[in-house]
Amino acid sequence: MLTLFHHPLSSASRFIRLVLEEYEEAANLHEENVFERRPVFLELNPACTLPVLQDGASGPICGASAIAEYLDETRGPLMRERRLLPETAIERAEARRLVDWSLTKLEDEVTHYLVRERALKRQLPPEQGGGSPDSGVIRAAKTNLKHHMKYFAWLAVSRNWFAGEKMSYADLAAASSFSVLDYLGEVSWDEEPGLKDWYARIKSRPSFRSLLAERVKGLPPTSHYSDLDF
Amino acid sequence: MLTLFHHPLSSASRFIRLVLEEYEEAANLHEENVFERRPVFLELNPACTLPVLQDGASGPICGASAIAEYLDETRGPLMRERRLLPETAIERAEARRLVDWSLTKLEDEVTHYLVRERALKRQLPPEQGGGSPDSGVIRAAKTNLKHHMKYFAWLAVSRNWFAGEKMSYADLAAASSFSVLDYLGEVSWDEEPGLKDWYARIKSRPSFRSLLAERVKGLPPTSHYSDLDF
Repeated sequence: MLTLFHHPLSSASRFIRLVLEEYEEAANLHEENVFERRPVFLELNPACTLPVLQDGASGPICGASAIAEYLDETRGPLMRERRLLPETAIERAEARRLVDWSLTKLEDEVTHYLVRERALKRQLPPEQGGGSPDSGVIRAAKTNLKHHMKYFAWLAVSRNWFAGEKMSYADLAAASSFSVLDYLGEVSWDEEPGLKDWYARIKSRPSFRSLLAERVKGLPPTSHYSDLDF
Repeated sequence: MLTLFHHPLSSASRFIRLVLEEYEEAANLHEENVFERRPVFLELNPACTLPVLQDGASGPICGASAIAEYLDETRGPLMRERRLLPETAIERAEARRLVDWSLTKLEDEVTHYLVRERALKRQLPPEQGGGSPDSGVIRAAKTNLKHHMKYFAWLAVSRNWFAGEKMSYADLAAASSFSVLDYLGEVSWDEEPGLKDWYARIKSRPSFRSLLAERVKGLPPTSHYSDLDF
């Protein structure tokens, strides 16, 4: 049995949850608040980041990229047509470039800031960084988001799926980040209709259902969050 | 023929150069200053990050992780005993965790700051972030470095190589970061003798020679940088 340490507002955690759902792999989900720095969790992952996967007695496997590669190596070939990394090395490289874009670049320039300012700061004590949101930081992150949305919209209209003909890790990683941003009501979908169409396609997949049904305590999502016809 | 876009003070670039040397793959090296945001380079990699690899007519392959996976898929199996990712999925996950540690966590908390403050700021015009080094930033990065060194020293004395019995991507990624920091004279090797022994082993490999011979214009390395008996 798989156990996944995750957080509902962690894009990287959502990415792995989507991969597990697409592969119909059941997993025990354990919600981890990394700010608590629990000794038991630090022993699993001294970097104290999410997600972390345990596969029976194997593991821990730390970080979304390492987990995604592990799932590809151990489950991917059995999935045949539904495998989430493309077939050729060069197409796989393109999928990985875009996973990295969503989980590192978009995360570092946008998602991380908006999650911290809009959600985490309300829940944390001051000594862990809690407090009032910083409107300057929010404004800068929103400006950055516009550039990222333009790039992803260009991908969405130029290709069938982000990394080529078939849906891949590239789509699931981006959808994870956008679902977190959408929960917070930060995505102006009507500004990028091509991106909206892509998100509508991916949001209506069965793998997305449990994410859309989940609620963060004390922080309701924007009104259209779970709406498939948004 | 391979072409690698790199920078001498980019740890991620050095990592791929070491992998190519270990695999005895010749490559044209093209030094790229990402601050210039050259349109031709932005077309190859819109994220404007290093390294970027072109494999003949294939590519571009953007980012150290995507390149490392690509080289493993296209060259790894032919390398047999010298393959730089371990055999089992769980050991490969451990190697990837540590690559990510060096190229993301150590980079974000230490290397990035010291390279910027100690080297890049001297070379850049003010509108691109040039200026005097910020001693507060340098001090904070140095404090962070001590914690990272302790962790890597623990790995060095607990295991034969960082990710297990054999040298792997985990060692080359860490050695890349430490070689950049060592160029800048920022590593107090005598504080962590176990880590020093590991670095001496890896520094004396033929794959390291070209890095040790390279000089950044206007910025000589610390006196022991190329010395194998440091």
